[in-house]
Amino acid sequence: MIYFDNSATTKMYPEVLDTYRKVNEQFFGNPSSLHRLGNEADALLQQSRKQIAQLLGAQPDEIFFTSGGTESDNWAIKGTAMEKFAAGKHMIASSVEHPAVTKSLEQLEKLGFEISYLPVDANGIVSIEELEKAIRKDTVLLSVMAINNEVGSIQPIEAIGELLENYPWVHFHVDAVQAVGECEPLIRHPRVDLLSLSAHKFNGPKGVGILYKKHGKRIAPLLTGGGQESGMRSTTENVAGVAAMAKALRMTLENSASSRKQEQLVRNKLVAAISEYEDVQIFSPEDGAGHILCFAMKGVRGEVMVHAFESQGIFISTTSACSSRKKGTPYTLGSMGVPVSWSQCAVRISLSGENTEAEAESFIEHFRTLHEQFQKIQ
Amino acid sequence: MIYFDNSATTKMYPEVLDTYRKVNEQFFGNPSSLHRLGNEADALLQQSRKQIAQLLGAQPDEIFFTSGGTESDNWAIKGTAMEKFAAGKHMIASSVEHPAVTKSLEQLEKLGFEISYLPVDANGIVSIEELEKAIRKDTVLLSVMAINNEVGSIQPIEAIGELLENYPWVHFHVDAVQAVGECEPLIRHPRVDLLSLSAHKFNGPKGVGILYKKHGKRIAPLLTGGGQESGMRSTTENVAGVAAMAKALRMTLENSASSRKQEQLVRNKLVAAISEYEDVQIFSPEDGAGHILCFAMKGVRGEVMVHAFESQGIFISTTSACSSRKKGTPYTLGSMGVPVSWSQCAVRISLSGENTEAEAESFIEHFRTLHEQFQKIQ
Ligand SMILES: Cc1ncc(COP(=O)(O)O)c(C=O)c1O
Ligand SMILES: Cc1ncc(COP(=O)(O)O)c(C=O)c1O
Repeated sequence: MIYFDNSATTKMYPEVLDTYRKVNEQFFGNPSSLHRLGNEADALLQQSRKQIAQLLGAQPDEIFFTSGGTESDNWAIKGTAMEKFAAGKHMIASSVEHPAVTKSLEQLEKLGFEISYLPVDANGIVSIEELEKAIRKDTVLLSVMAINNEVGSIQPIEAIGELLENYPWVHFHVDAVQAVGECEPLIRHPRVDLLSLSAHKFNGPKGVGILYKKHGKRIAPLLTGGGQESGMRSTTENVAGVAAMAKALRMTLENSASSRKQEQLVRNKLVAAISEYEDVQIFSPEDGAGHILCFAMKGVRGEVMVHAFESQGIFISTTSACSSRKKGTPYTLGSMGVPVSWSQCAVRISLSGENTEAEAESFIEHFRTLHEQFQKIQ
Repeated sequence: MIYFDNSATTKMYPEVLDTYRKVNEQFFGNPSSLHRLGNEADALLQQSRKQIAQLLGAQPDEIFFTSGGTESDNWAIKGTAMEKFAAGKHMIASSVEHPAVTKSLEQLEKLGFEISYLPVDANGIVSIEELEKAIRKDTVLLSVMAINNEVGSIQPIEAIGELLENYPWVHFHVDAVQAVGECEPLIRHPRVDLLSLSAHKFNGPKGVGILYKKHGKRIAPLLTGGGQESGMRSTTENVAGVAAMAKALRMTLENSASSRKQEQLVRNKLVAAISEYEDVQIFSPEDGAGHILCFAMKGVRGEVMVHAFESQGIFISTTSACSSRKKGTPYTLGSMGVPVSWSQCAVRISLSGENTEAEAESFIEHFRTLHEQFQKIQ
């Protein structure tokens, strides 16, 4: 089996799963309980928070735990909306954001917000000039992802941060769900106010995520109740999930230099091979993230390609795992100007540091065979 | 060690933890992925949904997975608010609800909603007459918990359901977080539209919960994005957490008859012993839930009592875990008319079916010693 679908989800590291088990066995108390079992669970939670903060270059009280990337994105956006309801009802996002961002914006639109979507160029990148034109006095939030999940474009977060120094009233949210281990530091500019992460994208557990929120920046809570997470996100804390996530983050970042090198090696091999074919088009920008490669074989629909490779024990994806996009919604290839005849053929390979050159060679061989077969059918 | 704090949280059953591990090892795919690894994970998710539906007496498409009781409560309330924004802005709740309910209502109040809180009697029970008086044409939601988490009062859910047959425009939400295994069926009247559960309260994992939503009842999603859970709750599904929760629910309900008997036995023993003391008051109603016992020793603050028992290896709680670290009156006791001088002394014992009569005896013995000591100090 060759697993080339790491942007959809990753397998938990055995050590991380082990942490999850141990914490549940030994520290099952409710961190809010006054007794020792509560205190021990709470100490572990705060230790995880401290470790994660250190890894991200943040302060512990800037780290909030959530149920995943989607909740972090929703909270950043809807929490800003609720907090700044009186101040302004305009938000800006790139036109290649994940649905966790765009659907949240659409929900706010129904409640009277106005949303501006920034166009992207053929590489999927927003322009700083367009962004500056879009900012208004009543703009309360800008949401731009670090690395796009469909093609791997890397957005100019630092440059956007620089620009936003002139617009201090705008909350800057970065969806960095696809960026862990791929670009460091994760908080790439001090002007980033909010940053979303999801543990299962970096070999941690599903159902656990992080929202980084910079000191002094205010958002309303999305989940209210018992007052956990400094009153910002109520619910009994998932102590084992958080401890497991902290370990996964540490392991991923410790390995990231060699992982990235390995991913680049594998990706280069793949690119070199498939770009030989005249009827194959690569959509991922050359200077995109090293772990994502999006391309299409002319006339062969994405699903067909996914299943053809699956039958060879190779797991790839159509452009993103969640396929719920409705017509008219911004989506990456469409926004990049790729015609539907091509974009419906798109597939995505997404790598981890554990993928090997041998796997790339195996893929290339199967690709050649499949290409021949599809040529005959057409 | 004697663990008498099962309403704060429970320890995962070893079998449940084992399910969590196995699913992560063998079915780590993203259920939205088109390939086999995705399909297998999705099949497991749907199988868990079906099993949970059966256990609750519901249909599989009435079961939605969340990050816990708090999210389920928040979603039921805020999702109703968003869905019915144009229809009405009045909500009703008992005055003994969990903060996950009351804090959500308070947040809506800031956005223009009007909330009516139903008074309770000395047993913590709402009156049907008061409820009927409170219902209006613009009432969009009624939230009443099944079993109170501080004293164990059981609300008249069936009678409320009967009444609400006359008010079909009101969403009826039941927080049943403390009720799993304690009263069956959990959906105690067909008029119940929304019902919240939290896995870590029944020996399942923390960070996983359920919202039951009856067919045809509409609420807006709280977490929007990739369109998982039929578009109602987006985020990559926590397959292992859900499978573990399904197992925990099955085990808990299978054992519930004998667990309840055991809890009642232990509770009776405790009640018989502590009601002998003149300066001890029991707040839990006699016909309350069998697993919760709330009482106070005059003049001894709750925290002091908790720590005194802790030093003997017995883990109890002030009235609720999440309010433990905050100052102020226990909410339920205040609503029941208990004066502060007594309520600040309240502690809660919460049992599981695994607690034994020997543990009760040990508690009673320590109670006698502590009582003597406290008498001397006063
Ligand atoms: C860029 C991006 N943002 C957000 C998400 C949502 O993360 P999750 O499914 O863990 O909620 C994903 C992955 O699905 C993603 O790729
Ligand atoms: C009655 C009640 N509702 C809701 C909750 C919230 O559950 P959770 O902390 O799992 O979100 C709790 C427990 O904390 C509870 O006892």
